Amino acid sequence: MNEEALVARLKRLFPQSADVVEGPGDDCAAIRLPGSDSLLLAAVDQVIEGIHYLPGEEICRVAEKLVKRNVSDIAAMGGTPSHAMLTIAANPLGEGTLFRFFEAAQTACARYGMCIIGGDVSALPAPGAVFTLSILGYVTLDCMKRRRTAQPGDLLCGTGSFGRSFPTGRHLRFEPRLEEGRYLGKQRCVHAMMDVSDGLLKDALRMASDSGLALRLEADSVPRYDGASLEEALTDGEDYELIFAVAPGEADALMAEFPYTRLSKFGVFLEGTPGKLVNLPDLKKKGFDHFHENN
Amino acid sequence: MNEEALVARLKRLFPQSADVVEGPGDDCAAIRLPGSDSLLLAAVDQVIEGIHYLPGEEICRVAEKLVKRNVSDIAAMGGTPSHAMLTIAANPLGEGTLFRFFEAAQTACARYGMCIIGGDVSALPAPGAVFTLSILGYVTLDCMKRRRTAQPGDLLCGTGSFGRSFPTGRHLRFEPRLEEGRYLGKQRCVHAMMDVSDGLLKDALRMASDSGLALRLEADSVPRYDGASLEEALTDGEDYELIFAVAPGEADALMAEFPYTRLSKFGVFLEGTPGKLVNLPDLKKKGFDHFHENN
Repeated sequence: MNEEALVARLKRLFPQSADVVEGPGDDCAAIRLPGSDSLLLAAVDQVIEGIHYLPGEEICRVAEKLVKRNVSDIAAMGGTPSHAMLTIAANPLGEGTLFRFFEAAQTACARYGMCIIGGDVSALPAPGAVFTLSILGYVTLDCMKRRRTAQPGDLLCGTGSFGRSFPTGRHLRFEPRLEEGRYLGKQRCVHAMMDVSDGLLKDALRMASDSGLALRLEADSVPRYDGASLEEALTDGEDYELIFAVAPGEADALMAEFPYTRLSKFGVFLEGTPGKLVNLPDLKKKGFDHFHENN
Repeated sequence: MNEEALVARLKRLFPQSADVVEGPGDDCAAIRLPGSDSLLLAAVDQVIEGIHYLPGEEICRVAEKLVKRNVSDIAAMGGTPSHAMLTIAANPLGEGTLFRFFEAAQTACARYGMCIIGGDVSALPAPGAVFTLSILGYVTLDCMKRRRTAQPGDLLCGTGSFGRSFPTGRHLRFEPRLEEGRYLGKQRCVHAMMDVSDGLLKDALRMASDSGLALRLEADSVPRYDGASLEEALTDGEDYELIFAVAPGEADALMAEFPYTRLSKFGVFLEGTPGKLVNLPDLKKKGFDHFHENN
């Protein structure tokens, strides 16, 4: 079973109560709060030694990355982060490491306006380290962006540029697009939004699939980071840029007025098989053969 | 550095925003919600193979325990659980195990009125398993009970009985005291409350210490589970009973009217060195020598 099918099966397993505006499957869950116009956003993420970073990586960098990945999830909903809880399971579990981790996490959380309200520390029986962060935040319903609400004809746009996140160190140094996400959250012409962690192409096709649409990707228009090949830009992952679906008549004005980073448009959502990349043969002619169609 | 000193040092590291009514150090954090009388409760807990359960334990039991431990934290605040997020980091990470875990977690969450709104699944590089659950819940400010607000002269009371949680299988089979916690939350004579996970004596002394009080424990009055020795009742842990501090003149009426399990009174909070057990010599005469005074 591939990851998409697994997630779909898991989602069916979890019925949601009436106050859940957005359940599992988006960057955050969103819950209606009693007596309030605000929605509570919630997400959780893990960083694991040997999977998400190599043993020997400076622990402060790991803490910072964990915080920023979660902030990026709040940004992708158009929200504002507020509180975090941290867990550590590690072996060895030295006090020095523990404090450096928590100090770095505290500094990063404070930078994004969050406080750390709880957590848990435990030993692991064998060498290794697992860190989790649960993040809370707020957004109003009219500013919240989902990933599953792109409309036929919408243009696929994105912040920044893509590819070579690991060799350039950007997978650690990136800044979550928090201001950008809030700005885009307020724009009615932005119909859907998500952050890019698993690679531009994979994540853009998720937005298409969850919206019940196909996608044509204009490969020549994808902004590539610092000498990245097309393949690197489309598949490297850990870019932590925002991608979003914009009403076609309003994309140019949005791009012209956007006060932050450069925006680009590089695709269009179409009626068709959900999640299908309609111009894959063209991409293959351009030397892109990493991606195997499996739908 | 012992655990208490470590927690104290960590708490100082984390400044709290104005909306945080209770920060790290209690069973849950509590946050004031915009435009609402309700407080949001939040906690996170881990269950780790080889630390909290043995390899080979039925995975459904592990899921159930993880949910119930967290529900017990909400109960200890007088609250009502509402939503959960789950993470799994495991090696091997078989789909069968994954689904049995999530199904059991879903069943347990539904039993306590919660839905699962998100999560994360990752491989571990080496054999093992780490599960975390982040729980959310609600409580009104006037019903919320903290652990740090016992008053001099208050009686130490508890639900149920203590000891031999592991040999009797109660550490897996226990029922979190959710109804009991909500009932006690509504009683103004209950000044402080927490759940017992690390052993009755250790946790009662935490309540004393956090309240700036000493404690006299009436060892003969501690209800022991099914043949537990005094030492087992005081130190075994994983009882998941609630202990609470009650105004002395009102304890008998509360105990007589309590509609759930048996309540017992077995100690008194006193002015004195915070966290000091004033009658340790008496306890030692009764054959209790497991506990080493370190304050």
